[in-house]
Amino acid sequence: MVSYRKELWFSTSNRREFINITSEVESCLRESGIQEGLLLCNAMHITSSVFINDNESGLHQDFDLWLEKLAPEKPYSQYQHNGYEDNADAHLKRTIMGREVVVAITKGKLDFGPWEQIFYGEFDGKREKRVLVKIIGE
Amino acid sequence: MVSYRKELWFSTSNRREFINITSEVESCLRESGIQEGLLLCNAMHITSSVFINDNESGLHQDFDLWLEKLAPEKPYSQYQHNGYEDNADAHLKRTIMGREVVVAITKGKLDFGPWEQIFYGEFDGKREKRVLVKIIGE
Amino acid sequence: MVSYRKELWFSTSNRREFINITSEVESCLRESGIQEGLLLCNAMHITSSVFINDNESGLHQDFDLWLEKLAPEKPYSQYQHNGYEDNADAHLKRTIMGREVVVAITKGKLDFGPWEQIFYGEFDGKREKRVLVKIIGE
Repeated sequence: MVSYRKELWFSTSNRREFINITSEVESCLRESGIQEGLLLCNAMHITSSVFINDNESGLHQDFDLWLEKLAPEKPYSQYQHNGYEDNADAHLKRTIMGREVVVAITKGKLDFGPWEQIFYGEFDGKREKRVLVKIIGE
Repeated sequence: MVSYRKELWFSTSNRREFINITSEVESCLRESGIQEGLLLCNAMHITSSVFINDNESGLHQDFDLWLEKLAPEKPYSQYQHNGYEDNADAHLKRTIMGREVVVAITKGKLDFGPWEQIFYGEFDGKREKRVLVKIIGE
Repeated sequence: MVSYRKELWFSTSNRREFINITSEVESCLRESGIQEGLLLCNAMHITSSVFINDNESGLHQDFDLWLEKLAPEKPYSQYQHNGYEDNADAHLKRTIMGREVVVAITKGKLDFGPWEQIFYGEFDGKREKRVLVKIIGE
């Protein structure tokens, strides 16, 4: 069994942002040399997500509006968690979108359907945050 | 380390449908011969889900109504993603229900609690779509 | 490849409760002796969750209120699943919070960001329920 680990760093200019990280994850996979196995990609922070969906900007706007409806940022006072911090909504949004994805590795590739792409979802940005890529296999 | 891969195909007659795929996944596991490891089962499409819950038809109706409340199909015009397509709600519903499950394999069996069953959740059906089963272990 | 399996048991005094299980999962990892690999931790019941978030009591109250808004417990009659049981809301809440987490194991440790902690989320408690820890690696 071979294992591989890499951190990817992101710093968004907005509080909320979606970044397509598929090609960075593919680079990790190539670097690992692993042909068959499982790849875990997870946010290392609790106010951001890694998820798989469509690379379509209209859909990303829909996600943003929808998450604001399900877990609104303001008023900050509606959340017990806020006070010293103001990011309770980001914890809830990340819960909807998910912390992690596990992807099959087959013949040295991400074993994806036609439209699957990996995104980093930031919900409390404007600072350096990390994603972990861990691959095991052979 | 042994690895195994299979695609399962589904075509539902309704836009939304839940299908119990536990026995198909168990067949994959038997075919793989793997005794100890991890099994990944994921939708290969971004408007459908694989999830684990109860095999109870009342609950499935509850899921359907609840998802329609959280992410209504209509009016189509409420979503930026719609226009050429009309399935933005399916992307959101799949996000709630999840893309994938990872299941422990112990002594050649899905290592499940008493009521755990694996379901394919279709939110934009009436066409051929795929689920991936990948198993690694030995 | 080495594999390890353990069940953790919980019985909450309330219907809903969050329990920090990070140190119990770390004990499993030490016991396994695995240095590099993947750890799966999942609820074995379909009305409870395992998830990763912040160990902050205000946030946990926010989660509880938020889940009650998205999937209210009462009136029981709003759900088809209820009748013999009254826990349909627990199935929905667990869906939002997730069944499982997959964690990278690196140099014999849970490969976590600074605030990541593992929680058991109970939504239909007051009885014995189980969490599975499965680790593969070497």
